[in-house]
Amino acid sequence: MAAAPEGKGILLKADPIAAAFREEVTSTLKTCETKPKLVGILSTSAAPSKFYAEFTRKQCEDLGVEFILKKTGAALSEELSEGDGVEEAILEANVDDSVHGILVYFPIFGPQQDHYLQQVISPMKDVEGLNFKFHYNLYHNIRFLEPKTLLETSTAPSQGTSTIDGEVPPAGMVKSIIPCTPLAVVKCLEYLGVYNRILPYGDRAYGKTVTVINRSEVVGRPLAALLSNDGARVFSVDIDSIQEYNKRPQASSDSTRYNPRHVVHPCHMTLQEILAISDVVVSAVPSANYKVTTEWLKAGCICLNVAADKNFEKDVRDKASIYLPAVGKVTILMLLRNLLRLQQYQCVVREGRESN
Amino acid sequence: MAAAPEGKGILLKADPIAAAFREEVTSTLKTCETKPKLVGILSTSAAPSKFYAEFTRKQCEDLGVEFILKKTGAALSEELSEGDGVEEAILEANVDDSVHGILVYFPIFGPQQDHYLQQVISPMKDVEGLNFKFHYNLYHNIRFLEPKTLLETSTAPSQGTSTIDGEVPPAGMVKSIIPCTPLAVVKCLEYLGVYNRILPYGDRAYGKTVTVINRSEVVGRPLAALLSNDGARVFSVDIDSIQEYNKRPQASSDSTRYNPRHVVHPCHMTLQEILAISDVVVSAVPSANYKVTTEWLKAGCICLNVAADKNFEKDVRDKASIYLPAVGKVTILMLLRNLLRLQQYQCVVREGRESN
Repeated sequence: MAAAPEGKGILLKADPIAAAFREEVTSTLKTCETKPKLVGILSTSAAPSKFYAEFTRKQCEDLGVEFILKKTGAALSEELSEGDGVEEAILEANVDDSVHGILVYFPIFGPQQDHYLQQVISPMKDVEGLNFKFHYNLYHNIRFLEPKTLLETSTAPSQGTSTIDGEVPPAGMVKSIIPCTPLAVVKCLEYLGVYNRILPYGDRAYGKTVTVINRSEVVGRPLAALLSNDGARVFSVDIDSIQEYNKRPQASSDSTRYNPRHVVHPCHMTLQEILAISDVVVSAVPSANYKVTTEWLKAGCICLNVAADKNFEKDVRDKASIYLPAVGKVTILMLLRNLLRLQQYQCVVREGRESN
Repeated sequence: MAAAPEGKGILLKADPIAAAFREEVTSTLKTCETKPKLVGILSTSAAPSKFYAEFTRKQCEDLGVEFILKKTGAALSEELSEGDGVEEAILEANVDDSVHGILVYFPIFGPQQDHYLQQVISPMKDVEGLNFKFHYNLYHNIRFLEPKTLLETSTAPSQGTSTIDGEVPPAGMVKSIIPCTPLAVVKCLEYLGVYNRILPYGDRAYGKTVTVINRSEVVGRPLAALLSNDGARVFSVDIDSIQEYNKRPQASSDSTRYNPRHVVHPCHMTLQEILAISDVVVSAVPSANYKVTTEWLKAGCICLNVAADKNFEKDVRDKASIYLPAVGKVTILMLLRNLLRLQQYQCVVREGRESN
């Protein structure tokens, strides 16, 4: 009984997944009257941020998006401190009508102050989808919003908006903005067939079990919420707990009676036990030392590494049928797609104002 | 927390799956120099066989395939016995060069004698793929054969043929014929996204767990073999045992070292336990009383009923994301596809003979 060499899982680069969105962005750009302008704000001397800023510039130039890199603080001069002037730069871009999107290179001050800064960016220009309004909509499975509410300074969510299924927004409403990285993961899973197009929109991950390792507010928690709102059974893993995100009650014999959005349950299984039943494993642990144990994976599962470091062992494809080592190329296209949407929302609101 | 009415799984008819194959058959027919001729042999008075014969006629007429129904025995006259003259009719059609395919309406005499009759049909005209050569190839994951071997009267499998991966047959070889019903199920599962096109040909069901209820030689066993040869972990269930068909060793941490074809292991789990981990459940139990317990299904699984009777409970879509109640419309197209292939193989062999 010979071992077939092709038994190793597929190592899949993000390029073919990014290609479809590159085309979408390119063709939408052709229909734009005004070339969209993205402002990047770099205020630290951190090498990864600098690298990401250059990557953004290259992607924008390739596609025909105007990109302006505004440097402040330590990025501008050695005499300045890390983060100096970043808030002012955001506020300036917020009110500059020629600017359609703002991208701030985090981390800057640490989680708490960075979270504050994320809320300073006008939701109308928040290409990364980090504003509380967008997170609230995501967690509550609210898929559409009225564009003018993106100008309101209050972060309180609008009360009247309810969950509406369907891909097309109702009259007067537009799609909410979804955080780039979780959205990129969803697009990768759509490409990989984890989302089943035969199932109704909003429930296409039904029947799939996904483990998401990381529960940060930027990646892991919104991703677990997105996937479970789309019907998946999701295990959310962080350093000291495992939770189950699921809109269906697991114990019931009737899975049709589900909640309009995911409910979080405590999970009493171990990581080894949940990996044994997971069709998909997404890891986003910002540590070079963290590795998912290959032996614990279900044979034929799909593994996505979302961290800058490699969170999977070298032999991951001994168990995984498909391994995607990085999703950055898809993430940047989600960001540009958000930019084009926001530019359009800005138009809608401006026209509305002018006609009143 | 309201129950969403759309939470019920999808009831999917086979028509959209059949449509693609109908088109394939239609366009292949346009390229045929000779209109293919299928002979149906009806030798009993059984209503389902009569019904199936009429169904075959209608499908053939719609598509432009010549269909001749030859009646013998009780189908021809009340004075004759069930099955009288069926073997003679087969032998006659075997040597009639104007006949490209033979379809005998079983059951006739019972499993043993019917199995003998199946072997009487020339493999070169065996549109249902019931000949031992085809079953041997299927069980041994041998995907290609030399067309001239279909003229050999011996049922012994050719020794030199080995497993070859890839969708395109090597020079001088053609695709083996796969039994219609199991093939129809595979095509349905391809349509439903259970087969992942990103994975290499021959391993596209890797990572999926399938339960097949029925282990007959016509449906259940060849289906379990096909699916496990394609990488799935398959539980084969019959009235007194459960077996696991798998080409990968489940206990190993290295799933790349798999066998060239499935290995059958005894399974010590109960039906309830295997259903709880099955992504797909195929049932083909020829009994109106047999029902798969909905409560045991994994939420979001896909259920296919292959039996003439309904093997799933009325509430199956409370748990299943997709329920396909019948596959007959796909099966008949697989039969016609086999007919067109065999007609082509007959040409190849005739030309080979003439040029020698």
